[in-house]
Amino acid sequence: MNEFKVRNPDYAARVAASLASQNFMYRVLGARVVSVAPGMVEVEADNQPDLQQPGGHAHGSVLVALADSATGYAAQTLLEPAFDIVTVELKFNFMAPAFGSRWRARGRVLRQGRTLSVCTGDVYALDGVTEKHVACIQTTMMAVPSHD
Amino acid sequence: MNEFKVRNPDYAARVAASLASQNFMYRVLGARVVSVAPGMVEVEADNQPDLQQPGGHAHGSVLVALADSATGYAAQTLLEPAFDIVTVELKFNFMAPAFGSRWRARGRVLRQGRTLSVCTGDVYALDGVTEKHVACIQTTMMAVPSHD
Amino acid sequence: MNEFKVRNPDYAARVAASLASQNFMYRVLGARVVSVAPGMVEVEADNQPDLQQPGGHAHGSVLVALADSATGYAAQTLLEPAFDIVTVELKFNFMAPAFGSRWRARGRVLRQGRTLSVCTGDVYALDGVTEKHVACIQTTMMAVPSHD
Amino acid sequence: MNEFKVRNPDYAARVAASLASQNFMYRVLGARVVSVAPGMVEVEADNQPDLQQPGGHAHGSVLVALADSATGYAAQTLLEPAFDIVTVELKFNFMAPAFGSRWRARGRVLRQGRTLSVCTGDVYALDGVTEKHVACIQTTMMAVPSHD
Repeated sequence: MNEFKVRNPDYAARVAASLASQNFMYRVLGARVVSVAPGMVEVEADNQPDLQQPGGHAHGSVLVALADSATGYAAQTLLEPAFDIVTVELKFNFMAPAFGSRWRARGRVLRQGRTLSVCTGDVYALDGVTEKHVACIQTTMMAVPSHD
Repeated sequence: MNEFKVRNPDYAARVAASLASQNFMYRVLGARVVSVAPGMVEVEADNQPDLQQPGGHAHGSVLVALADSATGYAAQTLLEPAFDIVTVELKFNFMAPAFGSRWRARGRVLRQGRTLSVCTGDVYALDGVTEKHVACIQTTMMAVPSHD
Repeated sequence: MNEFKVRNPDYAARVAASLASQNFMYRVLGARVVSVAPGMVEVEADNQPDLQQPGGHAHGSVLVALADSATGYAAQTLLEPAFDIVTVELKFNFMAPAFGSRWRARGRVLRQGRTLSVCTGDVYALDGVTEKHVACIQTTMMAVPSHD
Repeated sequence: MNEFKVRNPDYAARVAASLASQNFMYRVLGARVVSVAPGMVEVEADNQPDLQQPGGHAHGSVLVALADSATGYAAQTLLEPAFDIVTVELKFNFMAPAFGSRWRARGRVLRQGRTLSVCTGDVYALDGVTEKHVACIQTTMMAVPSHD
């Protein structure tokens, strides 16, 4: 559908390194990148008691964190090496409680501009057999010069 | 401005009990309710390494969690005892990095309907002296019958 | 992907009648339904001077109107005859100026609940040869009893 | 609350000229600027049959147009003369049907960045006596070099 130009051949390593540098995503949520392609990234975390609502489903903000990251990293894959992504804004709809053993967010770039990218994403609750579509997100991302 | 009818005189205790029952908010973020009035709630958390981005400011999803909770609890204060609030959707704008020693979200109900409430909120980064407005949120909340 | 249950066999006539009853959509924008299926509706309008920004592309609100209608009607197709759809809220991203001879919005239901439906949509600018993706929308719709 | 720096002393004339150049706002909606200050603009339109839903209240997209314009013009007031505002994205909540004889949107800048501005707005239905709060909006605006 979209054909994206890759400006950083090490885009996958860049995404992995960024996730590992984020305490909140990496240490608190235990998030991991499970799929990376130009303009598309999937991020996953396991259901664990600290991330739950009473009842055992995901606290909503955990799903927002996964979906924000997946769409932001999707935009990151298309940047030149000297740029990072920051989230300008996000819009998130909860569609069903996210039970299951793990939660996966898939982010895609709909349009990549010079400064701003528009992304869309979906969140799924997985239990090893079924995959339930539990939420969707629409985000605006901005490219900013890297600090390092 | 708005005059809200209180249907549950124990609204403050209800909000506090709900927060304490949420592992993610209470144990992971260390969030606390710092102010409750009919249609208005403030929720706060301390800046700590696990909640940071590289650089020391808040991971965005932490601010979303605080603002989602503050607006949801603002709507909760106006419900009858037998009802709970769930978030239908949220829209969040990041305006500046949230440094400081703690972060506070203030949520307000703009309109309370029978089923749906529309809320608005703001997030501030505090350092003991200044208060920086770092984000804003607009949310739709739904009243659902309590499980217990 | 989604399999929707149809509760009103006359869903297409219902959508067409609703559009024709809306002065703003029908008379001002000249909007027409160009495709209807359970959970999916396309609405189109011609580019005309009154709907333009200086420069000849669509005024943004015209695109919002088309996308709001397409997603709302997509939700309408799944309702029982005695119910109508109202828009709870919408989130719209502009991705590129909408030139071309006509603009088409495609709306889809992502999740149909008893009361609320979550929808997504896209807007395209057409010139007879190419189709440019110019905007995307995410909406929450509510079913309400019909007045008539 | 906010103290904004004015970079264009003719900001009010600029806003008025921009509105008059927009066919859709000026000729179709009959919109007019009723108040302008640095970082705050009010835009109004009269209730008329072509802008109504069946029942006589505003078609939702008319309110979106007014609120998008009010927030965009609020951001425009703070720009240097050589820059224009374009809407990146908007999020709109409908809170009540907008009856009354005219509709007024008030837009305010929450944060002005070099490139992006975050704005908030409210829509009111007026009937000469009362003022009903019928909708709210949150928008992201971008400054772009003027064409002329």
